[in-house]
Amino acid sequence: MTFELVTKDTSTRARRGRLHTAHGVIETPVFMPVGTQATVKSMTADQLRDLDVEILLCNSYHLLLRPGHETIRQLGGLHRFMAWDRPILTDSGGYQVFSLSSLRDINEDGVRFQSHLDGTTHFLSPEKAIDVQLALGSDIMMILDDCIAYPSSHFETEKSMHRSLVWAERCKQHWEEFEGRTPKSEAQEFGVRPSNSLFGIVQGGIYHDLRQESATRLVAMDFPGYAIGGLAVGEPKPLMYEIIDRLEPQLPAAKPRYLMGVGTPADLVEAIGLGVDMFDCVMPTRHARNGWLFTKDGHIVIKHAKYKDDQGPVDSTCRCVVCRAYSRAYLRHLFIANEILSSVLNTIHNLYFYLDTIRRIRQFIEFHHFDEILTETRKAGFTPS
Amino acid sequence: MTFELVTKDTSTRARRGRLHTAHGVIETPVFMPVGTQATVKSMTADQLRDLDVEILLCNSYHLLLRPGHETIRQLGGLHRFMAWDRPILTDSGGYQVFSLSSLRDINEDGVRFQSHLDGTTHFLSPEKAIDVQLALGSDIMMILDDCIAYPSSHFETEKSMHRSLVWAERCKQHWEEFEGRTPKSEAQEFGVRPSNSLFGIVQGGIYHDLRQESATRLVAMDFPGYAIGGLAVGEPKPLMYEIIDRLEPQLPAAKPRYLMGVGTPADLVEAIGLGVDMFDCVMPTRHARNGWLFTKDGHIVIKHAKYKDDQGPVDSTCRCVVCRAYSRAYLRHLFIANEILSSVLNTIHNLYFYLDTIRRIRQFIEFHHFDEILTETRKAGFTPS
Repeated sequence: MTFELVTKDTSTRARRGRLHTAHGVIETPVFMPVGTQATVKSMTADQLRDLDVEILLCNSYHLLLRPGHETIRQLGGLHRFMAWDRPILTDSGGYQVFSLSSLRDINEDGVRFQSHLDGTTHFLSPEKAIDVQLALGSDIMMILDDCIAYPSSHFETEKSMHRSLVWAERCKQHWEEFEGRTPKSEAQEFGVRPSNSLFGIVQGGIYHDLRQESATRLVAMDFPGYAIGGLAVGEPKPLMYEIIDRLEPQLPAAKPRYLMGVGTPADLVEAIGLGVDMFDCVMPTRHARNGWLFTKDGHIVIKHAKYKDDQGPVDSTCRCVVCRAYSRAYLRHLFIANEILSSVLNTIHNLYFYLDTIRRIRQFIEFHHFDEILTETRKAGFTPS
Repeated sequence: MTFELVTKDTSTRARRGRLHTAHGVIETPVFMPVGTQATVKSMTADQLRDLDVEILLCNSYHLLLRPGHETIRQLGGLHRFMAWDRPILTDSGGYQVFSLSSLRDINEDGVRFQSHLDGTTHFLSPEKAIDVQLALGSDIMMILDDCIAYPSSHFETEKSMHRSLVWAERCKQHWEEFEGRTPKSEAQEFGVRPSNSLFGIVQGGIYHDLRQESATRLVAMDFPGYAIGGLAVGEPKPLMYEIIDRLEPQLPAAKPRYLMGVGTPADLVEAIGLGVDMFDCVMPTRHARNGWLFTKDGHIVIKHAKYKDDQGPVDSTCRCVVCRAYSRAYLRHLFIANEILSSVLNTIHNLYFYLDTIRRIRQFIEFHHFDEILTETRKAGFTPS
């Protein structure tokens, strides 16, 4: 994987870049829809391609439990399994272990946990997290990190951050050993692209000194890219931006930066202005299934009675296939009638909104006018969450 | 609407025809997927067009309750509401009144019933059933008929059949009055095509003499098409075929015949051999959502553990987009994980199976070799139900 920095905005830190992967080129800034269980909920691969989705995020935790990463490896890897021929980023599984499973035991070696599905016991170590992601055939893998709750004390956060650094080192070593010992033919046999990549994850909670230390030591390990983890977990938005603002200069300009699990359209604009290149969030897809639809003027809650006879589209400025063909009245009917098509159409619209927002941002960066979109976003002032 | 008889098979009664409607031409024999609540469950209009669905059936009962036929009329009619530009056939609502609602009172004038959704009271008369379907802007409307349970005595069945005949006459009269008094401009204003059509429905249960009487008197009323109702309600399959067999000569050859709510792929083949042109059934779509998938060799139940590692497609001879892209292992995973995409992909496959079966049958009729497909179907002997 190589990262090409195409241009930088002149009055902000916004960047236009290009990630070259074995499954194609990703323009940045990029938004990655979440395909939790090897499917972006309700979307066919064709629909995702029609939306021009460039890269998906899939969750290792869910896939190692069901159907199992070894099963997916035997079936030719995750791309083939879900019929997705563009890049896939996988997380390490750590975040879901901490948020979904019954946590049993965490120590320096890794974390033992119970499946949220059936209570079976599993063990996730840095090495195992890499093995899972290699079995899936991910294009961009993430290190296993220790995820702590917000708020946590400086002492607890430092301890956790140090553990994450040790795990980062072990992940990188394990990945390099695999890369080194795997002949290209074998890698192909197991559905694994030899050119996959591994990102480090900066931790340190809300403490600037810990964030600096985490970043400095990860950069010394020389990862192909850097993620910012442990944000959008409950801390105030201004604090989140401040942390990114002060952390960003520590990250090498020649490597992509990925803000994990963020966020609203306004969050994306702010973070891009601070030099972030990659994002993932369940917000467009989850909100879609709950009938919350994004528009240029904020959002609408489609179940409201006022849309019963509304012939207009969700957003009159939107060019998505849903806004071109269906009325708010029809979308309300589908939601009220609990029809599967409600989730399908709402998801298409919300994903289009996010992807179109990102495409528009790219153009503004190219013309060195990103500050205009930043001003416009702050003026609109809506922050759906 | 006009019906063109293209060719007839030489050794069976199978017919190849063409229905010309205001929303396009329908080749017959035809299978109509069911779009109960103004949506074929889980399918976008684009996906239905990609499948080359030629005509949909929608349920007046569901739509008059939610969102309401007047709402749909104000929104420009059902075609515009659901973004479907090809023909739509609507039933009269009668069947669901008898099967879904809390029945309150039936008399010669119509039927008073309680909504299965909220218990509100509604009244459906022959005239109202036509008004609802005119408001929806249906291409092919059905008369309101009295639907009785199986088994019923000869006496009860005769009484019910006579009531249906009276209602048929009133439906036709009401439709003709509307057609006569509605200037084209007004019809268009209300989203109603002036060229819509009305089918009579032959009733009479399992009694040949009652079926004959019903057919004879309906034919005397001169409907544009004739449906066979009250079958596939629990009677033995051989009896159903026998009734169609003996009824068919009473139906005018120049008009289309529609067997309501039928059936399995084998049922379609048998009934086409007896001279039926049109079918609708929830089987392909409902079975899809339950993980029951049709194949050339019978069916598979996708949740079975034996498909966990199965790299093959649902049906190796199938050319649908699902069989071309996804493995049984992936479809099993989606079903087990309760993913929406499971319903979507399974529905695409099952609808393709039905539509492809019908397309194949048309070719055999054109070459006057329909008996071969009949023999093949009987030899296979599987009748999923």
